[in-house]
Amino acid sequence: MTEHSLWRFSRALHRAINERQFADIENLIDEDIEWTIHGPVEWFPFFGSRHGKAAVMEVIRQIAEKVRVHRFDREQIMLGAESASSLLRYSLTMLDTNKPVRVRVAHFAQFREGRLSSMRIMVNSHELVEQAVYPPYARMVAVSA
Amino acid sequence: MTEHSLWRFSRALHRAINERQFADIENLIDEDIEWTIHGPVEWFPFFGSRHGKAAVMEVIRQIAEKVRVHRFDREQIMLGAESASSLLRYSLTMLDTNKPVRVRVAHFAQFREGRLSSMRIMVNSHELVEQAVYPPYARMVAVSA
Repeated sequence: MTEHSLWRFSRALHRAINERQFADIENLIDEDIEWTIHGPVEWFPFFGSRHGKAAVMEVIRQIAEKVRVHRFDREQIMLGAESASSLLRYSLTMLDTNKPVRVRVAHFAQFREGRLSSMRIMVNSHELVEQAVYPPYARMVAVSA
Repeated sequence: MTEHSLWRFSRALHRAINERQFADIENLIDEDIEWTIHGPVEWFPFFGSRHGKAAVMEVIRQIAEKVRVHRFDREQIMLGAESASSLLRYSLTMLDTNKPVRVRVAHFAQFREGRLSSMRIMVNSHELVEQAVYPPYARMVAVSA
C-alpha cells in the first residue's frame, strides 16, 4: 500500500514554508491546479484564487515569507482515493512582528496522479485578523463606543 | 444502496432551522454526540462545544431563532462509510435585524447507526462578524484612527 498523496504534500508544504525549500512541493503540484484560500484578501494578499502551478508557487513563497509553522494538530481527517480533507490547528509565528498566532484551518484537496490538482482552504480569519492584524474586538468596541 | 446519513441529516437540519420542526432532527442525533462550532462565542453564544443530544438540540433551537437559510451551495464534499465533510456557502437572513448574510462553513461529521455522533463546524467568522455584528473593518480603522 503506497503512502497517501496528502502526507507527501503536507511534508513538502511545511518544508517549503519553514525551510524555504521549494523543490519538493513544486514536483507535487499539477500544472493546471485550481487553488483558493478563502479569507480576507484585504489583509493577506496571498489569499484568494489562483490558477496554475506558477501562481500557486508564488503564493507558497509569500506564505513562507510571512509565517513560520511551529506546530499543527490534525483534529479531523477524511482520506479518499485521490482526495483528502482535514481540520487543522496551527501554531504560527508572524515573521514581520514575531507575534505568535493560533489559527484553525480546513482544507479540501484533490490529487491527480499524486499531484495536487485542486485545493480549497478556509482559514478561521476572525482569529487570524484578531491576533495578527488588530487588537481584540472588545478593545475596538471600547474605542468606538 | 441506501441514502447517505448526511443527506437525511442535512434535510432535517434545514427543516429545523427554517420551519422549526425539530422532531426529524432529534431522531438523527446520537444521545452521546460531541458537537463543536468553532467561532467567536462572544458574539454567538450558541457557538462552542456541547455534549449530548439535549445540549445540541438547544443549540439548533437557538440557531433557528437567529437565522433563516435562503440557500446553500455545497462547494466541496467527501463521503465516507459513516462520515462526511463539506465546504458550504450559505445565504442567510439574521432574523433580529433582517440583514442578509453570506457565509462559508466547513463541517466534519461522523455518524453511528445513521445518527450524528460527532460534528465539528467551522464558520468563516470574519465574514459573519463583519456582516452580522460590525460594519466593515475598513470603517473601524477610520473610526479608531
